[in-house]
Amino acid sequence: MRYEGDKIKGINIAYIGGGSRGWARNLMRDLALEEQLSGTVKLYDIDYKAACDNTTIGNSLVQYPEAKSKWKYEASKTIGKALTGADLVIISILPGTFDEMESDVHLPEEYGIFQSVGDTTGPGGIVRALRTIPMFMEFAEAIKKYCPKAWVINYTNPMSLCVRTLYKVFPGVKAFGCCHEVFKTQEQLGIAFTEKTGIKLTRQDVKVNVLGINHFTWIDKASYQDIDLMPYYAEFVNKYYETGYGDWQSSFWHTGHRVKFDLFKRYGIAGAAGDRHLAEFLPPWYLKDPETVEKWRFHLTPVSYRKEDLKKRLKTSARLLSGKEKMELKPSGEEGIKQIKAILGLGNFITNVNMPNMGQLRGLPLDAVVETNAAFSRDSVVPVIAGEFPPDVNNLVLRNIINQETTLKAAMTKDVNIAFRAFVNDPQVIIEIDDARELFKRMLDNTKKYLPGWKL
Amino acid sequence: MRYEGDKIKGINIAYIGGGSRGWARNLMRDLALEEQLSGTVKLYDIDYKAACDNTTIGNSLVQYPEAKSKWKYEASKTIGKALTGADLVIISILPGTFDEMESDVHLPEEYGIFQSVGDTTGPGGIVRALRTIPMFMEFAEAIKKYCPKAWVINYTNPMSLCVRTLYKVFPGVKAFGCCHEVFKTQEQLGIAFTEKTGIKLTRQDVKVNVLGINHFTWIDKASYQDIDLMPYYAEFVNKYYETGYGDWQSSFWHTGHRVKFDLFKRYGIAGAAGDRHLAEFLPPWYLKDPETVEKWRFHLTPVSYRKEDLKKRLKTSARLLSGKEKMELKPSGEEGIKQIKAILGLGNFITNVNMPNMGQLRGLPLDAVVETNAAFSRDSVVPVIAGEFPPDVNNLVLRNIINQETTLKAAMTKDVNIAFRAFVNDPQVIIEIDDARELFKRMLDNTKKYLPGWKL
Amino acid sequence: MRYEGDKIKGINIAYIGGGSRGWARNLMRDLALEEQLSGTVKLYDIDYKAACDNTTIGNSLVQYPEAKSKWKYEASKTIGKALTGADLVIISILPGTFDEMESDVHLPEEYGIFQSVGDTTGPGGIVRALRTIPMFMEFAEAIKKYCPKAWVINYTNPMSLCVRTLYKVFPGVKAFGCCHEVFKTQEQLGIAFTEKTGIKLTRQDVKVNVLGINHFTWIDKASYQDIDLMPYYAEFVNKYYETGYGDWQSSFWHTGHRVKFDLFKRYGIAGAAGDRHLAEFLPPWYLKDPETVEKWRFHLTPVSYRKEDLKKRLKTSARLLSGKEKMELKPSGEEGIKQIKAILGLGNFITNVNMPNMGQLRGLPLDAVVETNAAFSRDSVVPVIAGEFPPDVNNLVLRNIINQETTLKAAMTKDVNIAFRAFVNDPQVIIEIDDARELFKRMLDNTKKYLPGWKL
Amino acid sequence: MRYEGDKIKGINIAYIGGGSRGWARNLMRDLALEEQLSGTVKLYDIDYKAACDNTTIGNSLVQYPEAKSKWKYEASKTIGKALTGADLVIISILPGTFDEMESDVHLPEEYGIFQSVGDTTGPGGIVRALRTIPMFMEFAEAIKKYCPKAWVINYTNPMSLCVRTLYKVFPGVKAFGCCHEVFKTQEQLGIAFTEKTGIKLTRQDVKVNVLGINHFTWIDKASYQDIDLMPYYAEFVNKYYETGYGDWQSSFWHTGHRVKFDLFKRYGIAGAAGDRHLAEFLPPWYLKDPETVEKWRFHLTPVSYRKEDLKKRLKTSARLLSGKEKMELKPSGEEGIKQIKAILGLGNFITNVNMPNMGQLRGLPLDAVVETNAAFSRDSVVPVIAGEFPPDVNNLVLRNIINQETTLKAAMTKDVNIAFRAFVNDPQVIIEIDDARELFKRMLDNTKKYLPGWKL
Repeated sequence: MRYEGDKIKGINIAYIGGGSRGWARNLMRDLALEEQLSGTVKLYDIDYKAACDNTTIGNSLVQYPEAKSKWKYEASKTIGKALTGADLVIISILPGTFDEMESDVHLPEEYGIFQSVGDTTGPGGIVRALRTIPMFMEFAEAIKKYCPKAWVINYTNPMSLCVRTLYKVFPGVKAFGCCHEVFKTQEQLGIAFTEKTGIKLTRQDVKVNVLGINHFTWIDKASYQDIDLMPYYAEFVNKYYETGYGDWQSSFWHTGHRVKFDLFKRYGIAGAAGDRHLAEFLPPWYLKDPETVEKWRFHLTPVSYRKEDLKKRLKTSARLLSGKEKMELKPSGEEGIKQIKAILGLGNFITNVNMPNMGQLRGLPLDAVVETNAAFSRDSVVPVIAGEFPPDVNNLVLRNIINQETTLKAAMTKDVNIAFRAFVNDPQVIIEIDDARELFKRMLDNTKKYLPGWKL
Repeated sequence: MRYEGDKIKGINIAYIGGGSRGWARNLMRDLALEEQLSGTVKLYDIDYKAACDNTTIGNSLVQYPEAKSKWKYEASKTIGKALTGADLVIISILPGTFDEMESDVHLPEEYGIFQSVGDTTGPGGIVRALRTIPMFMEFAEAIKKYCPKAWVINYTNPMSLCVRTLYKVFPGVKAFGCCHEVFKTQEQLGIAFTEKTGIKLTRQDVKVNVLGINHFTWIDKASYQDIDLMPYYAEFVNKYYETGYGDWQSSFWHTGHRVKFDLFKRYGIAGAAGDRHLAEFLPPWYLKDPETVEKWRFHLTPVSYRKEDLKKRLKTSARLLSGKEKMELKPSGEEGIKQIKAILGLGNFITNVNMPNMGQLRGLPLDAVVETNAAFSRDSVVPVIAGEFPPDVNNLVLRNIINQETTLKAAMTKDVNIAFRAFVNDPQVIIEIDDARELFKRMLDNTKKYLPGWKL
Repeated sequence: MRYEGDKIKGINIAYIGGGSRGWARNLMRDLALEEQLSGTVKLYDIDYKAACDNTTIGNSLVQYPEAKSKWKYEASKTIGKALTGADLVIISILPGTFDEMESDVHLPEEYGIFQSVGDTTGPGGIVRALRTIPMFMEFAEAIKKYCPKAWVINYTNPMSLCVRTLYKVFPGVKAFGCCHEVFKTQEQLGIAFTEKTGIKLTRQDVKVNVLGINHFTWIDKASYQDIDLMPYYAEFVNKYYETGYGDWQSSFWHTGHRVKFDLFKRYGIAGAAGDRHLAEFLPPWYLKDPETVEKWRFHLTPVSYRKEDLKKRLKTSARLLSGKEKMELKPSGEEGIKQIKAILGLGNFITNVNMPNMGQLRGLPLDAVVETNAAFSRDSVVPVIAGEFPPDVNNLVLRNIINQETTLKAAMTKDVNIAFRAFVNDPQVIIEIDDARELFKRMLDNTKKYLPGWKL
Repeated sequence: MRYEGDKIKGINIAYIGGGSRGWARNLMRDLALEEQLSGTVKLYDIDYKAACDNTTIGNSLVQYPEAKSKWKYEASKTIGKALTGADLVIISILPGTFDEMESDVHLPEEYGIFQSVGDTTGPGGIVRALRTIPMFMEFAEAIKKYCPKAWVINYTNPMSLCVRTLYKVFPGVKAFGCCHEVFKTQEQLGIAFTEKTGIKLTRQDVKVNVLGINHFTWIDKASYQDIDLMPYYAEFVNKYYETGYGDWQSSFWHTGHRVKFDLFKRYGIAGAAGDRHLAEFLPPWYLKDPETVEKWRFHLTPVSYRKEDLKKRLKTSARLLSGKEKMELKPSGEEGIKQIKAILGLGNFITNVNMPNMGQLRGLPLDAVVETNAAFSRDSVVPVIAGEFPPDVNNLVLRNIINQETTLKAAMTKDVNIAFRAFVNDPQVIIEIDDARELFKRMLDNTKKYLPGWKL
């Protein structure tokens, strides 16, 4: 890596999960559009063929007239090869396949537990974590060995436990986790202002204080210039409380934000993640059954839909690979490149990330991975003080953090009893203990190939 | 008060709620049987007639041949008169009547919320607290004014909030709260040992470490001599897990202890209150509906039963008053007298009490009223270190403490919004927000005569 | 205040202490050289004449060809007039005169206590604080009344207690304190690198983590690009430990940095303030007597020197006022303007400030004013996490914070006994208690006109 | 061990340091005078001969007509033999000899550091700790191996670090440390009352709240019946402040209590250890030089005196051994037997002990060994809540605790640099750093035979 004028050349990026058809593509686009950076991206994936395909696609971008920089893509057969010499590491994997995810999300439905996403918390999130943590233990060891000074950016869920595992195994790691869920609430705060004043705001115009854990994130202060936006939001919430806001029916991902509105009315601070995520961290206030979910204007996301979507993406890949189709080079809207530039010394900025609590979120345990703003500058990502929650919200968040720690301990010791303790303590698990035991056993069985060494 | 040899004479006890037909009678009995103490008990009650009746009954005990000491009873028309000169103050009142309690306990049933007691936590406990706190604010002011150096023993529920209010209003108060719920688990630990070894133990033989909040109290260590009783208890729990232990059907107060057993299996520490109480602090795992309650081998206690029981006790009073019936002078089994003796310098001992947290229960907020062991000695009740909970249990307890603090704040500021925030955050309240609002409004309406100054 | 393109016009700055001949001049210069900002500066001073003189001088700058922006200066007769409408408030006053300072610094010498500065800690710092706190209580009330949303920048010593007082009296204040002492250690870290590698670094090239309290500030991490500078510094310290570094004899302000070096050898982290300041926070390891001071290569700064210097500055003022002399318009090297720009939305950056501890410095009490990095952005100064001290250094810092809190309490309650408790607990006060009482009494007498309402 | 009526027979006590001529003798006496206990004491000592001698003496007591119980004494050749089967372990050793102690205490005098005892803190205490900790590491391992459920009572200095080491190496140990220093302040509180009222009090009449670390212990509350004794003490302190109280000149151990009085005047709480100890935990306010010591009415205790005294005690031993002299059987005044009885189930009581902080002393680190009251009952010693210090006193205590932790770390890692960091941070070490290095090196050299594995 070398600095030439206002450009940085020869940057080495390692991409774990480099065969992905989603995030990998976004990164390629954003890199191609960034004129100050260039270098090599090494793609590593347990599906080597997929990494090779992405290599071909990535290298084809150089030909695009709209590309502003040249990046070279290489597929690495081993993780060590990918990581050696890396300045930056990106991790974006699918832990297991959609078959395991199907069990995570839908098996609990037989027991009356409905999950709108099932990848972060609740029965599905816990089981997913149990199979993901061992993978991240390996990544942490490899980073420690091959590129201990590299910055590591994680996009994988369950976010908090992925980042927590990296720090637990290699305390010296320079890692953080990124998620765009907060952005939408930021936008909505702007809309609340626009509705009242007619003044249009971009997301960047809305300065927010972020606090919480990933997907159970909150905003307690928001301003535009020196204007407090929270009163505008309160009015907005009241206006749309009954009906919900926006077109929530056109897609599984869309919601009417009624869960967020209800939480705001209860606690006075704004949920800053999609309703599908927020609802899962709570007792089944909003997820009692499909009818309740519909009433609150959001959706249960079926894994069958994800499977269909994957097929489409595979077809797109094939077309891109064959050269029959060209990628559309437009910014992804993610902040990844901006973060990378700041870490490399090209512009300070502040945004929300997932990092271990060093005091930025008072009232929650140190070392737990929390989501708050952090200041990015050259070789430095430092959390800024986010303050603290009202006591009742703090307690809701704390309950989930405690379950995460129990899950981590279970995964590291391969202890099914400890794991069950987290499971039964999840806010969504209010079913009978014997049913809970049966469900948990069945779920673990369905994911057992990712649990080597466990006595099931 | 004066010391004569091994006796103390001229002790002044003020009894707030002195018209009671329950606790007051127990105290009279225990005092009459204690030969080292004598003096005067001043009975104060908003029902002055009831206090006068108890005076008559109390003064009649002197005639009993089995009485070992002479106590004089007087009814006081004002609280100030009762408290002036008091060495000890006992508070045991019924806040409101059983009509209000009927609303507390049974109205929520219309909304699918079932409460087995309804006087401590849950919708009923919160509303009862809202009407009780103003009374205890008055008591605290009066104690501060008339007898600031007296020791104050509270028996009223909701225990934690009653004691918390005394300290909040008069931080210099020397108060603690007593409850016998722990004793039964102590006995059961002994039974577990007896079943296995044949060795009979009294409750006093079983040394326990107590931690928690009143009615959501736990025991994490128990020993007889140098024998750890916890493994015996674990075996006992397994043996009776399915069937429950004991005759649970003969009375509303009896249980099969299955809730306690289930909690022990989940968390590895023993619940130390009746199942009827424990279940109310949790999500509706055990209180979903009357069938679930039956399955777990305990009962919902109808207030109609309490009303019937009161009628019987009133009749007993009348008979005692008329001299047609004599009281049976046998020890109540309560520790009150033993505690009083220790405070007066007659014998150190250790037992569990409810006092503000000064560090005795790590991981919970300072000043919250917690239940742990304390060392009693002359003019001194000092909590002993109780350690800390496993993280998940700590979180369950903390959640209730936070709700208590919110309830206290609501009562002191007469703010219905703050009160609702506690209400909706109760683990049992997982109904829809609009239903919750309606229920809460109706419950407050039913108790509004005890809420002067509130805007309902 | 209005935004026009990349410029901001009509900014209102209130300057408390606006008659000053030092900082006020620096600000005028820096404002005149900043082309993006313009507006009005209202100067308030208890010496109204001095404020008027500075107004004349300030307004003359418009004529200078090298001035890049136009600022208007006005003298305000009352603090309310100056603050009304202010966007920013600058506080830079001399609390009392150099006569009081002479007593602060030199009277303790009669008792064997030698102070190298005497304005922050030690006997002199404590007495100075006692007369300064009432002034800042007034400022805080006035800011609350006239411009509660303005940002307040303090330059006055004792820094920590000035800022602490503002927040204590008006918790909603948006205030921070600035001090340039850290910059010199930052530069020295660069020099250590240059000496070894030949690569020249500017101060801005050296990224540091700052932690501590003002004038007892430390750096535990320093880097240039991705190079850790601490090993270079360790070598530098060893090299110059015996001789000191640099020309320390040419001025009272110069030092050989031996105190800093010695602390680094003891504790492994770098002192980040001048040796004159650092030494005063410690037992008299370096300040035993003038010989010891000399041996450690620094100076006791006589107040007579400050008086002489003031005379010179007054003469310069007269010449500037008469138009006989022109100010030299060159940047002051202070960061004030850069901070103001960031707060107004012109460029994020990170620098060290003095603000209440909200968790940024773990191990020290919340609310104490600590010095760490903070992220500056539009209408926002948020501390970033600074970590924690090694236990023994933490203890040294904590001791001084405790004394500050005691001093604050004494000043707010006008209680001479509380004040003495801080005095005698100062690390430098190891003299006999009766001597200490006498000294303290004499020092208070010398400053008593600034202590209205005290019983001395 | 077996219970027979109100007696316990067959108790096994292991005595490490059983060759001692001081404490061992006290124990023998107190055991012989206690009619409820009997059993065997196994004496272990690195000086086996001395243990054998004590065995002979101990076994001779059976013949004494005034002996109320029969104890058998045996010398054990190995520590394992002594510990096997032990119900109780007593540790009372001299770490090293008086030759090492001579260096600890008197070598620092060459550098202007005067120590009145030199066995707990200061240069002497730190070096003594460095040689003692390895011994206690061995004891802890042996206890873990041979008698993990035994109660361990330590009398050895440096008390805090001895007990801390036991818990650090074997966290399950049931150990506490005993010291009688507090008793004298307890007595003095009684005297203050007697002087004023004529009412005679025994030490037991004076109930105190104890807080601190061993030899730097404090009393913040004291009462007799319901009378607050602190105002009496305040008057007493004022009365005797100038002259000191009592005959301080007749022995090295006597003091005029002026240090205690001065601390009380400064901080408002009573020092509860001898002045000789208290003074050593502070900057050299009272220990500047021998003249200052004399002025404050206490003594530097020369080790030559201890050597002389030992000779006398050896002679007494010889006479006892030969049967020429009889021991006088009177109670030692120590609480050891009372504590043992309580642990064995014969009577609850409360007294001060040294145990790890579990929250009993708020504001000090958990796990640090602190001295507070504890409740003794069968198989249980639990600290009671002692509250917290005023902030400035807390800081003085904390400083010493931090130094203890650093010393422990140094001893466990055999790291001379870490050890020096504790040394130079001691409040008494305000000499120049190079002198400090030289002194420390010389002191370590003098004790090096007890520091195997160190690189000196």
